Amino acid sequence: MSHVGAFAGFHADLAAVRREASGDRRYAAVLSLGTPSLERGAKLKNDDPPGVRAVFALDPRLQQDTLPIGDFPLCRLLLSNDSNYPWFILVPRREDISEIFQLGVADQQQLWQESTALAQLLKDLFDADKMNVAALGNVVSQLHMHVIVRKREDAAWPAPVWGKYPAKPYTAEQVAAIHERLRRVLTEDFTFVEG
Amino acid sequence: MSHVGAFAGFHADLAAVRREASGDRRYAAVLSLGTPSLERGAKLKNDDPPGVRAVFALDPRLQQDTLPIGDFPLCRLLLSNDSNYPWFILVPRREDISEIFQLGVADQQQLWQESTALAQLLKDLFDADKMNVAALGNVVSQLHMHVIVRKREDAAWPAPVWGKYPAKPYTAEQVAAIHERLRRVLTEDFTFVEG
Repeated sequence: MSHVGAFAGFHADLAAVRREASGDRRYAAVLSLGTPSLERGAKLKNDDPPGVRAVFALDPRLQQDTLPIGDFPLCRLLLSNDSNYPWFILVPRREDISEIFQLGVADQQQLWQESTALAQLLKDLFDADKMNVAALGNVVSQLHMHVIVRKREDAAWPAPVWGKYPAKPYTAEQVAAIHERLRRVLTEDFTFVEG
Repeated sequence: MSHVGAFAGFHADLAAVRREASGDRRYAAVLSLGTPSLERGAKLKNDDPPGVRAVFALDPRLQQDTLPIGDFPLCRLLLSNDSNYPWFILVPRREDISEIFQLGVADQQQLWQESTALAQLLKDLFDADKMNVAALGNVVSQLHMHVIVRKREDAAWPAPVWGKYPAKPYTAEQVAAIHERLRRVLTEDFTFVEG
């Protein structure tokens, strides 16, 4: 499992923040907020001890409808198994959370950072006309953030994707191609499932 | 125009952050990130000089479909004129932004903070079963964040609200009632349109 490099093509501001936040100063910005709950939120690293990771269980519906890509410091990254759109889902590895505001403050900030960085990266990688970023959760209550590449020529445009068309599962080759594209840009603070 | 009080019923962590961030230390947490772009993002106050506010123009479609409520430090708060759901929209008062990552880092943090605080506050105020928080923008490109109160008995549940049912405009009395409810809780860093 690798933890190297930097988001290629990453927005300069965010890249600067990530550099600033690397190493010992990694959570300096977050910790400077100084609220008690941040101690919980500070447990964001991929190298959390097994006991910490073990409490996270993916909702069975999410598990069924998606393919795992890997882990950001806070979120599991999933690919919706629907080739109509490059449709990704971030799931914070925390238990019993259905609303963003139920996360600790540091986790909230990390979720936004991962969502925003991912959206920016995917917009370039898939040449999106628009990114759709949404936390709905009316069906699956486990907090998850949709980060969806939209193109003017996609099946549902300009409507939102949910419930619009039946999912068109990917072939193994298509999934491998998406993994390969992601490997070129998801290089910092990201661990691919296959190691 | 008033700037007093605190979000009632506000999540303890966020309330602590806001207290921490008030006054001279208001942007201390953000500024500690120390990136050059934050100077732009630090212009978040309602008392921006007129020249700064004047560059913000609401998209005509948003203007037509919503009722203005007031201003958070970064975002204009709108009520979607559709009484099927308590459906609010936050629009950062910035020009030529269609994606979250195009905002400066401080603006991004402020947007997330306003979205999350609003979602939490509305969940309590309207007794929501779920909050839907989404930045789509396939039709209206001006960056705007939907913050929607969802209930199991609402018209579209569990589907997303977009395009599901024709908008049911509010009566003047219904709008006044919503304003009145919001006035009880939107008291810090919020300016109602009517002053």
